[in-house]
Amino acid sequence: MPEKDRIARFFAPLVTRAGADRLSDDVALLSGSRLIVTTDALVEGVHFLPDDPIETIARKLVRVNVSDIIAKGALPSEALLTLGWPQRRCDDQLARFASALGDDLANFGASLIGGDTVTAPDAMFVSLTLTGLCFNRAPVRRSGARAGDDLYVTGTIGLAVLGLDAIRRGEVSCDAAAAYRVPQLTPVSLARQIARHAHAAMDVSDGLLGDARTLAQASGVAADIALERVPFAGGKVSQAEALRLATFGDDYQILFAAAPSTRPHWAALPAVLDWPITRIGQFRTGNGLMVTENNVFVNLPETLGFEHG
Amino acid sequence: MPEKDRIARFFAPLVTRAGADRLSDDVALLSGSRLIVTTDALVEGVHFLPDDPIETIARKLVRVNVSDIIAKGALPSEALLTLGWPQRRCDDQLARFASALGDDLANFGASLIGGDTVTAPDAMFVSLTLTGLCFNRAPVRRSGARAGDDLYVTGTIGLAVLGLDAIRRGEVSCDAAAAYRVPQLTPVSLARQIARHAHAAMDVSDGLLGDARTLAQASGVAADIALERVPFAGGKVSQAEALRLATFGDDYQILFAAAPSTRPHWAALPAVLDWPITRIGQFRTGNGLMVTENNVFVNLPETLGFEHG
Repeated sequence: MPEKDRIARFFAPLVTRAGADRLSDDVALLSGSRLIVTTDALVEGVHFLPDDPIETIARKLVRVNVSDIIAKGALPSEALLTLGWPQRRCDDQLARFASALGDDLANFGASLIGGDTVTAPDAMFVSLTLTGLCFNRAPVRRSGARAGDDLYVTGTIGLAVLGLDAIRRGEVSCDAAAAYRVPQLTPVSLARQIARHAHAAMDVSDGLLGDARTLAQASGVAADIALERVPFAGGKVSQAEALRLATFGDDYQILFAAAPSTRPHWAALPAVLDWPITRIGQFRTGNGLMVTENNVFVNLPETLGFEHG
Repeated sequence: MPEKDRIARFFAPLVTRAGADRLSDDVALLSGSRLIVTTDALVEGVHFLPDDPIETIARKLVRVNVSDIIAKGALPSEALLTLGWPQRRCDDQLARFASALGDDLANFGASLIGGDTVTAPDAMFVSLTLTGLCFNRAPVRRSGARAGDDLYVTGTIGLAVLGLDAIRRGEVSCDAAAAYRVPQLTPVSLARQIARHAHAAMDVSDGLLGDARTLAQASGVAADIALERVPFAGGKVSQAEALRLATFGDDYQILFAAAPSTRPHWAALPAVLDWPITRIGQFRTGNGLMVTENNVFVNLPETLGFEHG
């Protein structure tokens, strides 16, 4: 059973607090605060490769959580680590893991405040709980997109899958491989802009198309994407390749909805942030996702997103 | 390398926030709030047995975290779950796990607000991050015990190890086995009393004697324990057995320091809470732990505590 279905079926019924938003978002708002909190875990052999350099596992763990916080219009703040450490990994690796974790948390303005280290019988596993301080009273949810809003994405899409391809070919030291192991995130200063000007937002972790559909569904509207506008890693690609890149996960860029009146604002921002922000579509009344390429309707694959398991 | 040493060596240097107290406590205070947060993880084959009923794993996970919150003078509030679920465990088990988790969180006034579910390649693992709302501005730390304070423990000591003994003998349905699987916690209403009247506190998770020494060390004083006063599970036991019960972990009772002037208060409380609270010793200037039995000095085993790994 896919993760989303499991959560909906078994865990969502347990939720009573308003800040948890029925587990429909990547973060929860802690009661009586402007703090949001998220948890993401990585497992050896599932989310990272056993031979990945240990520093990259630490940095990936930080970043898969940081992207959730930025997307909600908040600044990363405090982190708790659960570390499942197999005995076959030596203390030197642990020292490097800890050092990279601390360094990368600091890169995003966050700091370790606690956690638990336990013995893992076999595969290493790591989980990080990260708080974020919202610019607004509450996080920017997935559910605020309105018909007529534009759809934007930050950065480029597909670098992670190109990196995984490269690693499988043995080209482990190229830029794409590095980006698969350590996602290159949107600058945290985008968080303030998301808080001020976006109606809805989420990070792209399960594939651009599936996540866009999720954003539209949560908002009760339809999303249209113009495939030729999507900033794919490596530049112009065939339609088949575009669909592959847009349905793989691990991009960790930010997908958001904003009113057309804010277009000049978003157009000026990439030069300030030194990071791409691209308008790739819009929302309209209705439901579902429609993708076109140069105004021609594109048949979508059955599975729009990647299930991380 | 034991967990404490690993944390001190590799992770404590990363800590900069005052609320984390250099990772010297079981909880951290979130910046700008009265919320504390703790994380504890359980791994199949390490912290629970593969054949343990799935409901008991959920309840144990809740309770090992709740005991940390109560000990700090706070009420359990909101929880995030990381669930590493092996494919060989069926969805019926998952439904029962989720249901027991929600039920037991509610038992302690807490609620699930988020988390992450991932595939575990082999052993199941679970981690819970739990917040607590402090009665005071900050948690009751380990470091506040003063020379002259009394030392108290709640509940009984040693039921978990008797339960593990019983399970290993095949007596899986006795009360002790149940207590090993699902620790019986001090009522959460003790938290307010800890906040008001205790100088220092922690939960007993690694063995009474080791934890008492930890409390004394953190406070810069020495602790004396009168072994004949300790409320052992099963009543009066031999000195050897007493030392075994007092150096095994998994009690999850509360150990605290309070001024002698508050003795009448603590003496009246067990009848109110319907839970034992026993004065077992005191703190004095100096350092280390001294144990006596009927005023005779007791030689202590080299290892005072249980390393959960």
